[in-house]
Amino acid sequence: MATDLAARFHALHDDLVVLPNCWDAVTARLIEDAGAPALATTSAAVAWSLGRPDGNHLERDVMLEALRRITSAVDVPVSCDIEGGFGEGDEALAETTRLVIEAGAVGVNIEDTHAGGFRTVEDAAHRVSVVRQAADAAGVDLFINARTDSYLAGTADLDDALVRARAYLAAGASGIFVPGTGDLDVIGRITAAIDAPVNVLVGPGSPSVPELRAAGVRRVSAGSSLAGAVLGHVSRAAREMLDEGTYTQMDDALGWGDVNALFA
Amino acid sequence: MATDLAARFHALHDDLVVLPNCWDAVTARLIEDAGAPALATTSAAVAWSLGRPDGNHLERDVMLEALRRITSAVDVPVSCDIEGGFGEGDEALAETTRLVIEAGAVGVNIEDTHAGGFRTVEDAAHRVSVVRQAADAAGVDLFINARTDSYLAGTADLDDALVRARAYLAAGASGIFVPGTGDLDVIGRITAAIDAPVNVLVGPGSPSVPELRAAGVRRVSAGSSLAGAVLGHVSRAAREMLDEGTYTQMDDALGWGDVNALFA
Repeated sequence: MATDLAARFHALHDDLVVLPNCWDAVTARLIEDAGAPALATTSAAVAWSLGRPDGNHLERDVMLEALRRITSAVDVPVSCDIEGGFGEGDEALAETTRLVIEAGAVGVNIEDTHAGGFRTVEDAAHRVSVVRQAADAAGVDLFINARTDSYLAGTADLDDALVRARAYLAAGASGIFVPGTGDLDVIGRITAAIDAPVNVLVGPGSPSVPELRAAGVRRVSAGSSLAGAVLGHVSRAAREMLDEGTYTQMDDALGWGDVNALFA
Repeated sequence: MATDLAARFHALHDDLVVLPNCWDAVTARLIEDAGAPALATTSAAVAWSLGRPDGNHLERDVMLEALRRITSAVDVPVSCDIEGGFGEGDEALAETTRLVIEAGAVGVNIEDTHAGGFRTVEDAAHRVSVVRQAADAAGVDLFINARTDSYLAGTADLDDALVRARAYLAAGASGIFVPGTGDLDVIGRITAAIDAPVNVLVGPGSPSVPELRAAGVRRVSAGSSLAGAVLGHVSRAAREMLDEGTYTQMDDALGWGDVNALFA
C-alpha cells in the first residue's frame, strides 16, 4: 500500500502537482474531496491547531498522532512536513523518518535551517542522506522534498540555492523546494538548472499555476496560506458575533450533514 | 483555579454571554483573542477535525486530549460539549464528568437524545443529576447546560420543552439549551417560563444578539456554524487553487507571525 502510494506520489511530479496544504483530518478530507490527487501537511497549522507555535516546537509524538489522523482520513498519498527533522542526531532523524512512514506518509519536507540558522551544505545534505537510508531500510521510495531557505531566510542568492539543490539531490532528495521567491524569471532559472521536480510556495499575489507550469515548476504548495486565510475568517466571524451580534461571516457555510458525510 | 473559572463562567450568565464555538487550540486562542470572555467547544467540529463524524462517534479519550489542548491554550473558562455523555451507565457518565473537569472544563453541554431517539424526561433528568453529583464530588461548581432537543429533533412542542427544562433544573442543571428555534416569540415564552439562563443556537439568518437579549436570552452559541463557514472556505480555496490555479480565496489571511504570536 505504501509502495503504491509512493509510486503514485512520485508520478504526480512528472507533470505538475498542486498541493493546498492540510493540517487536520477534516481539512485533509475537504481538500481530497475538492479533487487534490495528493496531500501535504503544513507544519505551521498542524502546530497551531495543536496549541504550539510553528518552528520546531511541536513534540514529535503529537505531530505523528495528527499525521495518523490525516492519513487515516484519506485515500490519496500524503507528504509530511517534518520541519528540521525532530532531533539533531542521525539516529533521531532516522527514527523520525521511520515513524512518519509508519504513520502513513510517503513523502516528507525537510529544511536546511535550524535554530542556529543555516546548516552547512554538507550537514544539510548529510541529513537528506540519513532520511533516504532510513526510508530505503523501511522499503518505501519516500519522496524527499528537500527545502532550501536560500530565498526565504537567506541572501536570495541563486548560486547558493543551486549549490544546495544539487548537493541535496546527490544525497538522495527526490525534489527541491525553494520557497521565498515569486519571481518567474528566477524560478525559470532554478527549474532550468535542476534536473528534478522543483516546488514553489504560493499565496495571495503569487504567479498562477499556469504561469508556474510555464516556468518549469512541477509542484505548487500553499504552505500556511490556506490556513492563514481560514483562521482570519475564524477571527472575523468571532469578532462580528461578539461585537455586532450578527453572523454574516458564517454565510456560505458547509452544512452539518455535508461535513458529516465526509466521514461516513 | 477551576473554582475561580467556574464562578466566572456562572457570573457571565447573569447578563448574556456570547460563545462563538471553538474546536481546536488555534480556534480557541483566536476566539479568546477576539474578546470572548469564555469558550465552548462544538462536538461536531471537534469530531471532524479528529477524523470522526459528529454524533457520539468520537472516542472519549481522543476528545479529552483535544479538550486539554484547548484549556491549555487559553485563560478564559471553557465549556465542553459532551454530547450524550460518552456512555450509558451512571458510572460512565460520572467518569466523563470527572475527566472533563480534570481536563480543565468548568461547564458541559449534555443532550437528552441518544441513538435510540429521545430519552424519557426521567432518564434525562437522572443523567443531569449524575453529572451534578460527580461535579460536586470533584469540588467544582460545573455549569451544566442541559440541552433539550424538543425543537431541534422533536415535535417543537413548547410544553414538552418546558417540562423537560424544569425537570433538568430540578436535577441540578445550571441552564437550559434549546436549539432549533429562531422564533423570537417562542424564545421569549421559553425565557419567561424558565427561571435560569436560556441558551439559543445561532447561525446565518438567526435573530441578532440584541434581539435575543431583548427576548430574555442569556447565552448565545454558534454550534458548528462558525466551523461550517470556515470549512466551506477551505473547500472553496482548495478548489480555486486546484481548478483555476489562483489564490484569491486566500486573501485577508492572518500572517504566519500573527498566528505564531498567539502561542508565544
